[in-house]
Amino acid sequence: MTQLWRFFVPLLVGVCIWLMPLPPGMDSKAWSLFAIFTATILALICRPLPLGAVCLMSMVIAVMAQDLTLSQALSGFGNPVIWLILLVFFIARAFIKTHLGMRIAYFFVSLIGKHTLGLAYGIVGTELLIAPVIPSNGARAGGIMYPILKSIAESLDSRVGDGTERRVGAYLTQVCFQGNLITSAMFLTAMAANPMAQSMAKAAGVDITWTNWFTAAIVPGLLSIILIPLLLYFVYPPEIKHHPHAMQLAKDKLKEMGPMSRDEWTMVGVFIFMLFFWIFGIYWHIEATTTALIGVSLLLLTNVLSWEDVLNEKEAWHIFIWFGVLVTMANYLQILGFVDWFSLNVGGLIKGYDWEMVFLAIVLVYFYSHYLFASNTAHVGAMYAAFLAVAIASGTPPLLAALVLGFCSNLFSSMTHYGSTASVVLYGAGYVPLGTWWSLGLLVSIANLVIWLGAGGVWWKVLGLW
Amino acid sequence: MTQLWRFFVPLLVGVCIWLMPLPPGMDSKAWSLFAIFTATILALICRPLPLGAVCLMSMVIAVMAQDLTLSQALSGFGNPVIWLILLVFFIARAFIKTHLGMRIAYFFVSLIGKHTLGLAYGIVGTELLIAPVIPSNGARAGGIMYPILKSIAESLDSRVGDGTERRVGAYLTQVCFQGNLITSAMFLTAMAANPMAQSMAKAAGVDITWTNWFTAAIVPGLLSIILIPLLLYFVYPPEIKHHPHAMQLAKDKLKEMGPMSRDEWTMVGVFIFMLFFWIFGIYWHIEATTTALIGVSLLLLTNVLSWEDVLNEKEAWHIFIWFGVLVTMANYLQILGFVDWFSLNVGGLIKGYDWEMVFLAIVLVYFYSHYLFASNTAHVGAMYAAFLAVAIASGTPPLLAALVLGFCSNLFSSMTHYGSTASVVLYGAGYVPLGTWWSLGLLVSIANLVIWLGAGGVWWKVLGLW
Repeated sequence: MTQLWRFFVPLLVGVCIWLMPLPPGMDSKAWSLFAIFTATILALICRPLPLGAVCLMSMVIAVMAQDLTLSQALSGFGNPVIWLILLVFFIARAFIKTHLGMRIAYFFVSLIGKHTLGLAYGIVGTELLIAPVIPSNGARAGGIMYPILKSIAESLDSRVGDGTERRVGAYLTQVCFQGNLITSAMFLTAMAANPMAQSMAKAAGVDITWTNWFTAAIVPGLLSIILIPLLLYFVYPPEIKHHPHAMQLAKDKLKEMGPMSRDEWTMVGVFIFMLFFWIFGIYWHIEATTTALIGVSLLLLTNVLSWEDVLNEKEAWHIFIWFGVLVTMANYLQILGFVDWFSLNVGGLIKGYDWEMVFLAIVLVYFYSHYLFASNTAHVGAMYAAFLAVAIASGTPPLLAALVLGFCSNLFSSMTHYGSTASVVLYGAGYVPLGTWWSLGLLVSIANLVIWLGAGGVWWKVLGLW
Repeated sequence: MTQLWRFFVPLLVGVCIWLMPLPPGMDSKAWSLFAIFTATILALICRPLPLGAVCLMSMVIAVMAQDLTLSQALSGFGNPVIWLILLVFFIARAFIKTHLGMRIAYFFVSLIGKHTLGLAYGIVGTELLIAPVIPSNGARAGGIMYPILKSIAESLDSRVGDGTERRVGAYLTQVCFQGNLITSAMFLTAMAANPMAQSMAKAAGVDITWTNWFTAAIVPGLLSIILIPLLLYFVYPPEIKHHPHAMQLAKDKLKEMGPMSRDEWTMVGVFIFMLFFWIFGIYWHIEATTTALIGVSLLLLTNVLSWEDVLNEKEAWHIFIWFGVLVTMANYLQILGFVDWFSLNVGGLIKGYDWEMVFLAIVLVYFYSHYLFASNTAHVGAMYAAFLAVAIASGTPPLLAALVLGFCSNLFSSMTHYGSTASVVLYGAGYVPLGTWWSLGLLVSIANLVIWLGAGGVWWKVLGLW
């Protein structure tokens, strides 16, 4: 009971916001929900109770305050994105259970395992390779990279819950996460909301193509991909940096494992199947979640995954609850008009200044307002068009504005553990504690902005974008 | 792989229905979904895989067949009824964990524990006592009776999974379940859909009141309450019928347990709180699920229930998945017009006969079509008004028709393990295997119809209802 502050800090802040006079033009439900949302986010940091319990209570409070009806409050649990997260955890379990993840990990380590930094670049390199063809950063992070990452870490004796997280796993998790966001920003086809931004830009008269996006992103993107793992290496170093015997060890282990089992082959087959539909499913309107559902069904049918495994995946159920609630609240902040009010007021504040300053302000506000969002898609849907309009009106070259806001629409997820599907899955892996996740996220967000706006700015000048 | 028939029987039936020529006036999506629904129900019986896995696959198939969009398919997981079920499992866990359930059970046994039949009547008596004031049969079965039932069974060494189910637990589960449905049928305020039927009857010009409902139900209701536990006692006897020392043993155990702990008192407090809102919440539009959510939140806040307990409640998560899918399919059978088509065609078939025969046919069709429904409320919402209209048009005395269809709206849940919230929770307890559940359900449904239409018919003649 000495930890009562953990309850009172979020509660106090929430009540203070709630008691503030309603800003003009603000819906009272939206404001009340914003108070609850802020208190929830604070409670996630103060941790009076586990995340899931906190979120359940926030949901109850929102229902009791009549900000949301019960059905609205529960609607997030039928959200395809939430289900994608649940499903990739089951897929990851099968990866690990069949030892296929381990085999790939050993293979990886046997090639470049001498140094942790080498492994880090191996991971971001893999992301870079698959990002252009898998337009769901959640499927990529959860279905592909997370199982490999976890297996690599465990093969190097870095596990969750026994004090060995910092040996290798924690560092690699952050590298994988940040790498996922950077590679998402580099290709029009690397994240679901990128084409959405493209279509909104088109509506504003700006033509984004796969090529002009890629050309503008390549220089700052590669710089980020090289520098961010290094930055993390210094501020959040792995405890074990050299693995002099790791390569030989991995080769021995591979030999020891022998040929691939029936379950491993099945897993490979299902994996290729899912990869195929994650890449090409878009042509038949097959969503990433449907593909994952089919994949899990196949794994259950072939008994590679048992139903017991699914029910035992407690961490997945935990995420299901807390992320379900956060997504719902973020959705309703938008539906109830809070986000519109916010965009409108920002637009009003920055009129009449030089476009360079205005655009910088727009970018910063757009970027850091992602603390309020539980999904890239939601954020792009809510604010991209409005912010692009303000930027163009202020004199920013249209294509520059459209592209930079597009890049930000990926990079801004670095800051929280709920900002994108990849964040949720990789934070859920458990290697990195919440406070660290947020501090590193803030740091990386600044580094990314410096790289993309600084070096990127020079590159875009060369390209003639401004 | 000798069990391939378990896969093929449901698949074959589903495909056959799907290939049949579309009945006139039927939507092709509705028909295809009906094929999947039928195959799913068969698969639940044949059990090629656990229920949850079967239902996940049915969901995938419905999405791939484009009968449902992904969002529609997942919508059931945000349904308040599904959440009520999830939550009462957590509440039951707290009941058991604090030993309060055990204490109540011992108290019960110490009073009437000499004979299993005595316990059975104790259980239905309790149901009868609380039914008029708790209008959610799910909350009643799950939040109150299930924890007591489980504790009684376990105190008499009848557990799930170790071969002792049939000692006491299996029989008492069925008694509790059937008792729940009978008491639901006896009072206008004992089940959520009863007032719904009342308002639909009013729209058809028939006035149902608390008193005329109760007066008509009291005789067949009491007969059912007395006879059904006896019937079950003979066809599904408990292995242990006499517990000569049970009463003394229970008294000793109670003494041994000593005074109530802080957690037990908290549990009592939360329980009274929930009871209060389950009874009176209706006046402030507080749904049973909201009350349960608040209850679980309080239990988490006071640490009576830990978050770990919640995540460990695997059976709850299992039910969440399979019932979520079934509810969704049943909902969409209605939305896509299958149920309307069904009602319309039944109406057409029975025109021009004596009202007695017509009404009997209407009752039987209304009753047994509940095999298609995963909720009383859905069934009443879909069919009550139409069937009442057909009955009145055929010459059935209006109040008789309205009341009898109202009674059936409760009793028809006896047949399946998904027909009402109470079914799901009590089947989920695990004491009674699926096949037995269905056979007993069918038998009890016939017994109930004989009692209610036979003895009830005489009583309603006396009352002048026909």
